[in-house]
Amino acid sequence: MDWKWSYGFGFMCVVGDVSPRVFVGHSIYKGKAALTVEPRAPEFAALASGAFKLAKEGFLLLQFAPAASPRQYDWNRKQVFSLSVTEIGNLVSLNTRDSCEFFHDPNKGRSDEGKVRKVLRVEPLPDGSGHFFNLSVQNKLLNMDESIYIPVTKAEYTVLVSAFNYILPYLLGWHAFANSIRLNDTSRTNNATPRYGEDYEWNR
Amino acid sequence: MDWKWSYGFGFMCVVGDVSPRVFVGHSIYKGKAALTVEPRAPEFAALASGAFKLAKEGFLLLQFAPAASPRQYDWNRKQVFSLSVTEIGNLVSLNTRDSCEFFHDPNKGRSDEGKVRKVLRVEPLPDGSGHFFNLSVQNKLLNMDESIYIPVTKAEYTVLVSAFNYILPYLLGWHAFANSIRLNDTSRTNNATPRYGEDYEWNR
Amino acid sequence: MDWKWSYGFGFMCVVGDVSPRVFVGHSIYKGKAALTVEPRAPEFAALASGAFKLAKEGFLLLQFAPAASPRQYDWNRKQVFSLSVTEIGNLVSLNTRDSCEFFHDPNKGRSDEGKVRKVLRVEPLPDGSGHFFNLSVQNKLLNMDESIYIPVTKAEYTVLVSAFNYILPYLLGWHAFANSIRLNDTSRTNNATPRYGEDYEWNR
Amino acid sequence: MDWKWSYGFGFMCVVGDVSPRVFVGHSIYKGKAALTVEPRAPEFAALASGAFKLAKEGFLLLQFAPAASPRQYDWNRKQVFSLSVTEIGNLVSLNTRDSCEFFHDPNKGRSDEGKVRKVLRVEPLPDGSGHFFNLSVQNKLLNMDESIYIPVTKAEYTVLVSAFNYILPYLLGWHAFANSIRLNDTSRTNNATPRYGEDYEWNR
Repeated sequence: MDWKWSYGFGFMCVVGDVSPRVFVGHSIYKGKAALTVEPRAPEFAALASGAFKLAKEGFLLLQFAPAASPRQYDWNRKQVFSLSVTEIGNLVSLNTRDSCEFFHDPNKGRSDEGKVRKVLRVEPLPDGSGHFFNLSVQNKLLNMDESIYIPVTKAEYTVLVSAFNYILPYLLGWHAFANSIRLNDTSRTNNATPRYGEDYEWNR
Repeated sequence: MDWKWSYGFGFMCVVGDVSPRVFVGHSIYKGKAALTVEPRAPEFAALASGAFKLAKEGFLLLQFAPAASPRQYDWNRKQVFSLSVTEIGNLVSLNTRDSCEFFHDPNKGRSDEGKVRKVLRVEPLPDGSGHFFNLSVQNKLLNMDESIYIPVTKAEYTVLVSAFNYILPYLLGWHAFANSIRLNDTSRTNNATPRYGEDYEWNR
Repeated sequence: MDWKWSYGFGFMCVVGDVSPRVFVGHSIYKGKAALTVEPRAPEFAALASGAFKLAKEGFLLLQFAPAASPRQYDWNRKQVFSLSVTEIGNLVSLNTRDSCEFFHDPNKGRSDEGKVRKVLRVEPLPDGSGHFFNLSVQNKLLNMDESIYIPVTKAEYTVLVSAFNYILPYLLGWHAFANSIRLNDTSRTNNATPRYGEDYEWNR
Repeated sequence: MDWKWSYGFGFMCVVGDVSPRVFVGHSIYKGKAALTVEPRAPEFAALASGAFKLAKEGFLLLQFAPAASPRQYDWNRKQVFSLSVTEIGNLVSLNTRDSCEFFHDPNKGRSDEGKVRKVLRVEPLPDGSGHFFNLSVQNKLLNMDESIYIPVTKAEYTVLVSAFNYILPYLLGWHAFANSIRLNDTSRTNNATPRYGEDYEWNR
């Protein structure tokens, strides 16, 4: 047993059943459909130096399910849509009277390109009380054409925006940078090796 | 002693007196009443896989107490109101000139349904300097009818909104997802097993 | 060695040189004065149960120093002002054209009450490019009368507001609640013991 | 083995491969150029007391690369610009119709002062759909004159602002203060030693 405890802070990880996977989502249930939003983690790649870099940004998975009967939703008929970080930015900055529209082709760049077409539309409700979300999926491979609508009130939209704003830096992986900041004393080493052209541009 | 320390980060938990319960609240004291806001944690359920999923969203407990004498409040006569995540969204997005109103029946779906009726009203103060909070509780079981008012200044409301915005992702359990993101190298495994239709919708 | 590792997460603390005190501040240097803002931690009290409760909210310490010569500030002549959580809310919600003013008496409730009078004024700059902060201290005990002005640009004010918004939940102690949320499986215990009147007000 | 586990929380650090460096950035790729934003950590200095203080605020490194061919960027010709905390505040508070401009001289205060001149301009796009970023670098030492433009949509700008707002308190080092707040019981010690003139200004 020769561990050394140092100044500074960081996160320690033990192999095993620590920090198990956690599935979270936030759902909005309405008369004709339900919408569930789930964050998906970013991915990292190890560098030869032992450091890590972000390999792929995370995203939000939207799942739309039509109602089968009152308060029962048919998740077998669900349609999904993945929101990229920039699309999240779009929804976060959407004003009360704004609309937006995203087009996705899950087969883009593959042989089946163009066979499946997904469109997510977010538009203000006529009475200004919120927005509706509409996901249309046209799947020529399955000869399927689905369109699911769900109204989202201003309060529900605020909760989504709050959750989106919270999770966005994690989807970008910036939390991993933030957590890696150490309290090490850099006062000596640093003066000796100024990083030219980087960080001394505005010092007096 | 054969622990292995791995790259990556996560939270470690030791059985015992670690991370004890912490009671926090934020109070606003006024001439005729006091209002205390306390967050209540979300709940998780363990899955067979060892992962966890959110079982129940957290909420905010509002406690209103009438004044008994100057700077003394009668907490025995307190009335409580639980704010759901969506109701929190409502308060967070409330504009200076907006009102809102929530109706709760703590016995909903039980035999005593309708016997207790709670109404929380948040309305702008006439001079535009803030909002007042009014909780009315009509309890036919106890033949009791209480209504407690408390004015909340714009600055006090800002503090509440800041605290609400901070705590909302925790009430949704999204922090547990965020904390479970690992720095593992996923560069190899992932290319081998693309998750179809999920995360490749917008890649070039 | 018979530690047990459990599911769930939390923070572990080792007696010793872990999480040392850290002094941070953010300073604005101008021609005639400098302003430094430093957060001060909230305080907790242990309960008999082993839990903790917030005992005292944290605050922000503002320190104003007049310039002695170009880019030199006379910190011996500094004047300080402690911003409470609600006063922070006031500054955070201040619009471009708004002013605010806080009066403090550090001896309030003591024999020297009224002998020292501090006034912090935050007012828009005439050209709309930001606000100035003015701290006036009248100290009859020392026969001293100081007034320090410092202009703060819109960008500098944005940085302050961002830092204030970040730190506010910590000053309220809500981070300690947030960090104490565990991933424990509550699915069984909870159905058995519904918390009456608290959290079932809005469930279907 | 005589560790003691105490109440309270904090971060534990193990010397070794824990909390490795993590490189994160967020990139915007357009037809004629790419822009990458990377946070750089603040620096701390150890005090004789064992405490730490912030020695230098962190910053954001902007990297602009011109396109070499479709979807290929020439990072050898990249130009960099370091955004200070206040400049970040400027970008965060920029309205849809606002512009801003920053001038940097990486050699300021050295013999080559004035030889390199960098200007970052952020201006609204003519159609109001976002802003363009323009970095001009005039380097008399290398007889080089580069100017790189990249349009940034409103949604992309929202993502930047969200990331900037998240990272700003870390660049200020305030997270280290926040993480050092302990759950220690201060109820006894504190009453004995009131900190005069600091924290009792507004207590009743």
